[in-house]
Amino acid sequence: MQFQWSMPTRCFFGHDALRRHGEVLTSLGKRAMVVTGRAGAERSGALTGVTTLLDALGISWARFEQVEPNPSLETVLAGARATEEFAADFVIGIGGGSPMDAAKAIAALVHNRDPEALFAGRYDYPVLPVVAVPTTAGTGSEVTPYSILTDHGRGIKRSLSAPVLFPAFSFLDSRYLDTLPGPSLVNTVLDALSHAAEGFLARRATPLSDTLAMESLAIIGRHLAGLAEKERDPKLLDDLLYASQLAGMVIAQTGTTIAHGMGYGLTVHHEMDHGYANGAIFPAFLSFSMVHQPDRTTAILAALAMDGLEAFQDAVTGLLGPFPKIAAERLDQLAQAASQTANVHNTVPEPSLSDIRAMFTATFG
Amino acid sequence: MQFQWSMPTRCFFGHDALRRHGEVLTSLGKRAMVVTGRAGAERSGALTGVTTLLDALGISWARFEQVEPNPSLETVLAGARATEEFAADFVIGIGGGSPMDAAKAIAALVHNRDPEALFAGRYDYPVLPVVAVPTTAGTGSEVTPYSILTDHGRGIKRSLSAPVLFPAFSFLDSRYLDTLPGPSLVNTVLDALSHAAEGFLARRATPLSDTLAMESLAIIGRHLAGLAEKERDPKLLDDLLYASQLAGMVIAQTGTTIAHGMGYGLTVHHEMDHGYANGAIFPAFLSFSMVHQPDRTTAILAALAMDGLEAFQDAVTGLLGPFPKIAAERLDQLAQAASQTANVHNTVPEPSLSDIRAMFTATFG
Repeated sequence: MQFQWSMPTRCFFGHDALRRHGEVLTSLGKRAMVVTGRAGAERSGALTGVTTLLDALGISWARFEQVEPNPSLETVLAGARATEEFAADFVIGIGGGSPMDAAKAIAALVHNRDPEALFAGRYDYPVLPVVAVPTTAGTGSEVTPYSILTDHGRGIKRSLSAPVLFPAFSFLDSRYLDTLPGPSLVNTVLDALSHAAEGFLARRATPLSDTLAMESLAIIGRHLAGLAEKERDPKLLDDLLYASQLAGMVIAQTGTTIAHGMGYGLTVHHEMDHGYANGAIFPAFLSFSMVHQPDRTTAILAALAMDGLEAFQDAVTGLLGPFPKIAAERLDQLAQAASQTANVHNTVPEPSLSDIRAMFTATFG
Repeated sequence: MQFQWSMPTRCFFGHDALRRHGEVLTSLGKRAMVVTGRAGAERSGALTGVTTLLDALGISWARFEQVEPNPSLETVLAGARATEEFAADFVIGIGGGSPMDAAKAIAALVHNRDPEALFAGRYDYPVLPVVAVPTTAGTGSEVTPYSILTDHGRGIKRSLSAPVLFPAFSFLDSRYLDTLPGPSLVNTVLDALSHAAEGFLARRATPLSDTLAMESLAIIGRHLAGLAEKERDPKLLDDLLYASQLAGMVIAQTGTTIAHGMGYGLTVHHEMDHGYANGAIFPAFLSFSMVHQPDRTTAILAALAMDGLEAFQDAVTGLLGPFPKIAAERLDQLAQAASQTANVHNTVPEPSLSDIRAMFTATFG
């Protein structure tokens, strides 16, 4: 048995987590840059929660609100300039994966604007501390050392990974999920599901990440059917946010597999939501895994309380509706791009180009 | 649902963990104080592993080898003086709980020798980074922010707890368990069992610590019967060390309960081994818990694959032999002392003096 464990983020989970525990922010400095998208941070109430707290603590703050879904290199460079001008001591990312990932990249770019140094992930210059406040139940970014950026110049997604990018603190208040639109809730929960299941199937799976993955899947399995229409009681939202946190802790150890690698092209070139793309691909990915890792794949379906692959396929289709059709030539290109991702090497076994093409065809052909 | 999670230690688990991953120590400085007891670090091979690594990395080191079982305040003060004289940048604790706990206290005392500041746990002066190398499968100190010291002046054990006391790095190599005497292996595994089970029953239990506790108990349950006589194959030792790590991660979140509170007096005044004391008390503690938390207590027995309280009592007696008898008057004093520990307040429900006395009598009466 050989494995590592690292997840240094201190997490505060529960209603009013910011109000109850937010005083820890004073340990990070006196000036904060608040990084958000254009709507979710406000709609959820998390922005008000954060700024009220900062004002009460006497921490000066400015807001960088230009983070788009799948944030670009240009956006985080602009955010880093704004953060330097404001002379912020730390960065607070509020939202789904995009603002939290952007906050991490901004924190790493403040003292060095070279993108190649950023992606190399070995920073011999200061990286500002990051605080994460999720408003979705999917990304897990609040407990990972990852940030995924879109490089429009190259037309690809690129990921950062460095221990220093783990948030110092995360505040998980499930009330922020209350106003999340139904499709966004579904998409992000499927993203969490894919994190837990991919982490369980990954080459880099560990005993400890396996335990957390199974727990995450069991919780998600209890709530998946009819999720979009469910009444959002506190227990449901707590469960989903907690399952997402667990799944984030899993991929913080294991990384993701080809399912995420396939999703990247769909988000960059087909404007597909990240969680939607992963969820759509997942039945085909589990079919592939069932051939090569039958015990682990069966364990995933059992944890989800799914009666086999078909039941899982039906559940996903029921949540996402029929998937869009994508032309064969385009699927060739997507498969080619996915086969170049590092995710291939974390998949058991490494899928061939034709394996990847077959999964795309089964989903969008 | 309200809970926190914090366990910032980066852990390297597996054979040759020091050789494979030890280069991370260069991030902590150029001079190390190696803190050990008088025998275990050498016998296990861990001391050679550490010093070979330090030499190869060009890190100067000195050794403080005066840590006794249940280390005293005087010992860690002496260790802090030696560490300051050597101008160490960090402290490496090698051994069971005693050397690792001593290493933490020494790290906190180097820049301030005031014991009251030490126990207050709010350090506004530098605390040296700690590295932990366990040679038993019980303490979990390699993943906790705790250090337990004996204050001979007052005749009590006192505990430190501060986030800064989490080791920066832990190296868990189960080959160091190979030479552990049989009774020590049994005692430390029962200590790990008590950590997992007490964490699951504690007032401060959390969803995430519950998941880790159940996994730890399930692993321990597979190996408990006849443990002292078992052949020490790598799988067994990996499992026990991993279960102990999980149980440490549990109490890092939850703290311990009255079972540990009762054990302290037995180690200070009756020279009883810490794990032995906790193991001996545990059947009576689970009987108490069965009355007040039947679901959780039943879940613990199920995770251990024990067919009820009697089976558990038999298993513990089988491992530890008949317990020594302690005079009634002495049990009164022990119960009185245990009822004054902070552990009482983390127990559900808070046990009365007579509850505690009854558990002592059931065990040693």
